[in-house]
Amino acid sequence: MTQLRVPGPTPCPPEVLKAMAWQMVNHRGPEFHEMLTEVTENLKKVFQTRNDVLLLTGSGTGGLEAAVVNTLSPGDKILSVSIGVFGDRFANIAKTFGADVVSLKVEWGKAADPDDIKKAIKDNPGVKAVLVTHNETSTGVTNDVRAISKVVKDADKLLIVDAISSLGSINLPVDELNIDIAITASQKGWMVPPGLAMVSVSPAAWKARESAKMPNFYWDFARAKKIYDEKKENPWTPAVSVVYAFTVALKMMLKEGINNVFARHERIGKMTREGIKNMGLPLFAESSHASNTVTAVSIPEGLDGKKFRQVLREQYKVVLAGGQQTLDGKIFRIGHLGMVDEKDIKEILAAIQKVLPLAGFKK
Amino acid sequence: MTQLRVPGPTPCPPEVLKAMAWQMVNHRGPEFHEMLTEVTENLKKVFQTRNDVLLLTGSGTGGLEAAVVNTLSPGDKILSVSIGVFGDRFANIAKTFGADVVSLKVEWGKAADPDDIKKAIKDNPGVKAVLVTHNETSTGVTNDVRAISKVVKDADKLLIVDAISSLGSINLPVDELNIDIAITASQKGWMVPPGLAMVSVSPAAWKARESAKMPNFYWDFARAKKIYDEKKENPWTPAVSVVYAFTVALKMMLKEGINNVFARHERIGKMTREGIKNMGLPLFAESSHASNTVTAVSIPEGLDGKKFRQVLREQYKVVLAGGQQTLDGKIFRIGHLGMVDEKDIKEILAAIQKVLPLAGFKK
Repeated sequence: MTQLRVPGPTPCPPEVLKAMAWQMVNHRGPEFHEMLTEVTENLKKVFQTRNDVLLLTGSGTGGLEAAVVNTLSPGDKILSVSIGVFGDRFANIAKTFGADVVSLKVEWGKAADPDDIKKAIKDNPGVKAVLVTHNETSTGVTNDVRAISKVVKDADKLLIVDAISSLGSINLPVDELNIDIAITASQKGWMVPPGLAMVSVSPAAWKARESAKMPNFYWDFARAKKIYDEKKENPWTPAVSVVYAFTVALKMMLKEGINNVFARHERIGKMTREGIKNMGLPLFAESSHASNTVTAVSIPEGLDGKKFRQVLREQYKVVLAGGQQTLDGKIFRIGHLGMVDEKDIKEILAAIQKVLPLAGFKK
Repeated sequence: MTQLRVPGPTPCPPEVLKAMAWQMVNHRGPEFHEMLTEVTENLKKVFQTRNDVLLLTGSGTGGLEAAVVNTLSPGDKILSVSIGVFGDRFANIAKTFGADVVSLKVEWGKAADPDDIKKAIKDNPGVKAVLVTHNETSTGVTNDVRAISKVVKDADKLLIVDAISSLGSINLPVDELNIDIAITASQKGWMVPPGLAMVSVSPAAWKARESAKMPNFYWDFARAKKIYDEKKENPWTPAVSVVYAFTVALKMMLKEGINNVFARHERIGKMTREGIKNMGLPLFAESSHASNTVTAVSIPEGLDGKKFRQVLREQYKVVLAGGQQTLDGKIFRIGHLGMVDEKDIKEILAAIQKVLPLAGFKK
């Protein structure tokens, strides 16, 4: 069987795939009302929140756009904390819709320093919101959102967190950490195919929405909340099959216990990093903030990264991801989130070890 | 088996549902490149176009928003031709993003008169684009896009057509009719679950895009075209399973032959309307423009519409739709698009006939 180990889409359990094949129902009928309610309530458990959780039909990037256009007005000053491709993307979305973006850019491979964020907020009076990535999929780095939240909330700013590749895999208690909007997407640690983005919206974010002037229609949170509260429906036809898949996947996650899910990702992350180091390959991310859902490996001299991934895929059915943008050809990435256990990592590491010399690597 | 006869989501063939359960692949890998290319090329055959066809992860409404924000600037004057709920929605999207909307509203149940459109264009100099619904799902009326295109193109305006519930079911040759943007969505006549919107974009629409200033990021057509042309990928993680489903469904449609698909919908539409009339129920749409994908039936005095649909659903497993907005309680709607044949219509009509007296109807 193929080991699909890119950082999303992730492999889905057979029970989840079966649910994807359920016949359509009326998305405005009683069966679907029940499913949507169950999925929403179970998502809240994993988000660890009492805030509203909304399901949006779209990719994770759609969820990021939705967070921006629902809370900000053109001209609003925001602080973008970027540690990689997805942090930059979040800032670009805000810029596109007219925000005045103050950029705090961190060297790729490193996490953001909360003190730098504190200073940036102080140096830029009038910042309304801070946009930050929890887990940067492009570099395999996890930011310390607990410490970041402290400095953001001490300054009474909105905290908007891209948690696309972390929520459900790495502990991120939304309410405890005072996160105003957390965004994630179905194809990551949730073990569900792509098609839905999920966002939590705090009372402060709702308040921000009241005066927010960026244009929005499809992503309108207020409309989504209203029809969910009144009818347990989505405003537009949702990705019904992905909701089916969620009914199954969330039950599996809750049965395992979310703390056990987080602990498993921790073990798997550590095991992956140690295995890679033992082969003599350098890790790209600083070790203090290495991600437990994706490991970025620097391509050492001699290793033909493209050939390496091709042989892995064609001869060992192990599918890894390359680097993005300036990291193209510089790193490869192993996704280990969602349906993954020690046996999978053993298999992947064994395949990597066999293919490395075939692609020019000499320890 | 349940007869799901709302105007979307529509029932999916078993082969299509099986494809929904395929395991994930890398959306940036060779297998997916091949599938996306095949689906895009096959969609072009059904759209009958050489224009670009883009797949957007979202609902049909997302496709409408995408069409607006990619071609217009705030302040642009546009003519909205609305014959129902979805025409109004299209206009509201344009308004939300700052367009100066000239509204041509037609009495619900009737089609737009091309002469009125001609006059509205003449009376409102500076109109840049005309937004029109091909098949109005809320009223069961199909506009004559051929005649409308004539007056719009004689005046050299952009023609943007909401074909969500018609494309693939009712003949709409995009190039022959000079449609600049046609929008549809997977859960309608395509026999595929919801999750993707599909749009065709003409050279004139691309030219309009160059100067369009409405903000867009997630829906950016140029970005979608660039990565598709270069890599056969989507800019963001697409609804992979829905693409799987399309590989199967489009082969089925092309095997049947698109003209046969259109002819089947014509027969089915006619059969539905005649069956309804024979029971003594009044049709809501004017007969000259009755839709072949959805039939709206006026609720006559005595009939309890809510009870009628409930008994149908609970005792006969026939699921119909109610009316929307001011038509709530005034009409019910039968969806007959996608996977539907004469036997299905016979079953539905028989069930309706049995339930009518149970819900208070006396012929």
